[in-house]
Amino acid sequence: MYSFDKFHELVAQTIDENPFSKSPNELYEPMDYILNIGGKRIRPIIVLLGTDLFGGDIKKALKPSLAIEFFHNFSLMHDDIMDNASLRRSKPTVHEKFGTNTAILSGDAMLIKAYQFLEDLEPELFKKTTQLFSKTALEVCEGQQYDVNYETKVNVSYEDYIKMISLKTGVLLGTALKLGALVGDASEKDSDALYQYGLNLGIAYQLKDDYLDVFGSLEHLGKKHAGDIFENKKTILYISALEAANEEEKEELLYWYSSNTDNVDKIYAVENLFRKLNVNRKLSMLIREYTNKAHSFLDQIDVPEERKSHLRELSEFLIDRQG
Amino acid sequence: MYSFDKFHELVAQTIDENPFSKSPNELYEPMDYILNIGGKRIRPIIVLLGTDLFGGDIKKALKPSLAIEFFHNFSLMHDDIMDNASLRRSKPTVHEKFGTNTAILSGDAMLIKAYQFLEDLEPELFKKTTQLFSKTALEVCEGQQYDVNYETKVNVSYEDYIKMISLKTGVLLGTALKLGALVGDASEKDSDALYQYGLNLGIAYQLKDDYLDVFGSLEHLGKKHAGDIFENKKTILYISALEAANEEEKEELLYWYSSNTDNVDKIYAVENLFRKLNVNRKLSMLIREYTNKAHSFLDQIDVPEERKSHLRELSEFLIDRQG
Repeated sequence: MYSFDKFHELVAQTIDENPFSKSPNELYEPMDYILNIGGKRIRPIIVLLGTDLFGGDIKKALKPSLAIEFFHNFSLMHDDIMDNASLRRSKPTVHEKFGTNTAILSGDAMLIKAYQFLEDLEPELFKKTTQLFSKTALEVCEGQQYDVNYETKVNVSYEDYIKMISLKTGVLLGTALKLGALVGDASEKDSDALYQYGLNLGIAYQLKDDYLDVFGSLEHLGKKHAGDIFENKKTILYISALEAANEEEKEELLYWYSSNTDNVDKIYAVENLFRKLNVNRKLSMLIREYTNKAHSFLDQIDVPEERKSHLRELSEFLIDRQG
Repeated sequence: MYSFDKFHELVAQTIDENPFSKSPNELYEPMDYILNIGGKRIRPIIVLLGTDLFGGDIKKALKPSLAIEFFHNFSLMHDDIMDNASLRRSKPTVHEKFGTNTAILSGDAMLIKAYQFLEDLEPELFKKTTQLFSKTALEVCEGQQYDVNYETKVNVSYEDYIKMISLKTGVLLGTALKLGALVGDASEKDSDALYQYGLNLGIAYQLKDDYLDVFGSLEHLGKKHAGDIFENKKTILYISALEAANEEEKEELLYWYSSNTDNVDKIYAVENLFRKLNVNRKLSMLIREYTNKAHSFLDQIDVPEERKSHLRELSEFLIDRQG
C-alpha cells in the first residue's frame, strides 16, 4: 500500500508527463499557472485511494485522476470570475493575472482537457466513467448557480443549503472515489457505496469549512477570520441562527447582514449571537452526523478492514482539521 | 432520401423532446433562450447529412447531432462575452440579457450537455465520437484564442489567418460530417475524407463571409455593411491588401486601421484600396480553390454519386450565397 506522499508524488509526476501544447501560449499558460499555485492535489489523490481500496492498478488510475484535478481547476477559474475574487492561495487569480476573457477560454479548454484524461480507458470503462463525469460536472454547475442565487435569495432554508453544498462539493468527492473504484474494477454496489461515502464526507467537509471560518483558530486558518460574516454569506451558521432566533435576535442578525462593513463590531456581535443561539454546537453535531453517515457507507464495502485505513485517515484529515 | 426541410424538422423535434431540467432555472433558461433565437440549425443538419450519405440510420444520429448544435451555442455564449457583442441574430446576447456570470456558467453547462448527447451510442462508437468531439472542441478554443491574439498582433500572415479560421470554423464542420459518418457506419477512410471535405468547405465559407462583409449586396447581408472594416478586423482582405500594397498604400491602410471611427470616408477609402489592389478578385479565387479542394475529397468517397447530391447542394448553399 502506498503512502499519501507517494500518491502525491505520482499525481505530480503524471501532471509533468502530460504537458500542454505550446501554442497558443495565451490559452495554455493560465492552465499551467493555476495547476501550479500550490493546490494540495487532494482530489486526484482521492481517485487513487478509490482504486487502491479494491487493490486495482494505480497506474491505470493516474490519468483519470487528472480528469478530476483539471475539472476542479476549471471550476475554480470560472468561479473566481463570478465571485470577483482577486486572490487564490495568496496568488492573483487567473482573471486578475491574465484577464477575464482568457480566464473564460482557458477554463473552457481545461474542462475539455479533463474529459481527454479518460481516453486511455477501454471503451466500456471509458463510457461508464465519462457518463459519471458529465453528470457530476453538470451538478457542480447547478451547485454554483444555487450558490449565486442564494446571495440574493431572502429565505435560504437548511435543506436548500445542504443541497447546494452537496452539488458544489459533495458530488465531486463522491465521483473522485467512484471513478477510482470503477478503474479498480469494483462492483457496482461497492462503487456506489463509495460514492455515498464521498458525497457525505464532502458535505461534512464543507460544513467544517463554514465552522472554521468563524470558530477556527487564527493560527491554523491561513485566511481572513470570519470572512463569511464580512461578506454576508448565508452559510449554515447564519441559516441555523435565523431559525433559532427570537424576533429581537432576528432583527439584529438581519441588521448586520444587510450592511457591508469591515467594522469588527459586526464580527463580535454576530459571533456572540451565534454562540448564544448555540449554532456552533449544533453545527459540530451536524458535521459528526454527516461523517458518521459517510462511514456507515464505508462499512458496507466488501473489502478487508485494513484496506480502508487510508480512507479513515482521509476522513480525519478532512474533518478533524483545525484550519 | 429526406429533404433539407425534413432534416430541419427532425432536429427541431429532437430539441423539443430533450427539455432541460427545471432547476435551477437561472442556469437552464439562457440555454433555451440561445437555442431559440433563430439559429438555422445548419450544423446538426450537417451531421444528419453525414449519416445519410452512407445510408445510415438517421434516428440514431439525431441526439448526436445536438452535441454539435449545443457545442456551437456554448461557443457563441462565451465568444459573445469576449467580443463584447450586445446583439446576436438581432436579439440581445445571453450576457446582455442575463448577465456575464450567468453566460459563463450556462455556457459551461451547455458544453457538458453537448457531451451527454452522445451517451446513447454503444461503447465503441461512444468512445470514438467523444474523442473526436473533445479534440475538435479544444481546437475551436485554440482558434478563438488566435482570433483574440490577432486583434493586437501586428503582422498577421495569410497562413496565420487560414489556420485561425480552420480552427474556428472549419474543424467543426468537418467534425459534424465525420460524426454523422461514424454513426452511419462509414469506413475510416471515407469518414476521414468527409472530414476533409467539411474542413475545406468551412474555410471557404468563412472566407466568403469576409468577402460578403465588404462586397455583399446590402439587401442580402442583413447586417452592417463592412462591419469588419469599422472594427479594424484583420480579415483575409486586409492581410492580402497589406501584402500587395506599395509603401504609400500601406501607409494609408495602416492609417485607417489605426482609428476607431464611424466615418464612412474610411469605408469608402478602404474599399477603394481593396479594389485597386485586386483583393476582391484574389479572394474570389481563393474561395473557389478551397471549394474545389473540398469537392476533391467528396469525389473520393465510395458511395453512388446520387447520394452526394445533398452535400453538393450544401456547398452551393454555403458558398454561392449572396448574403
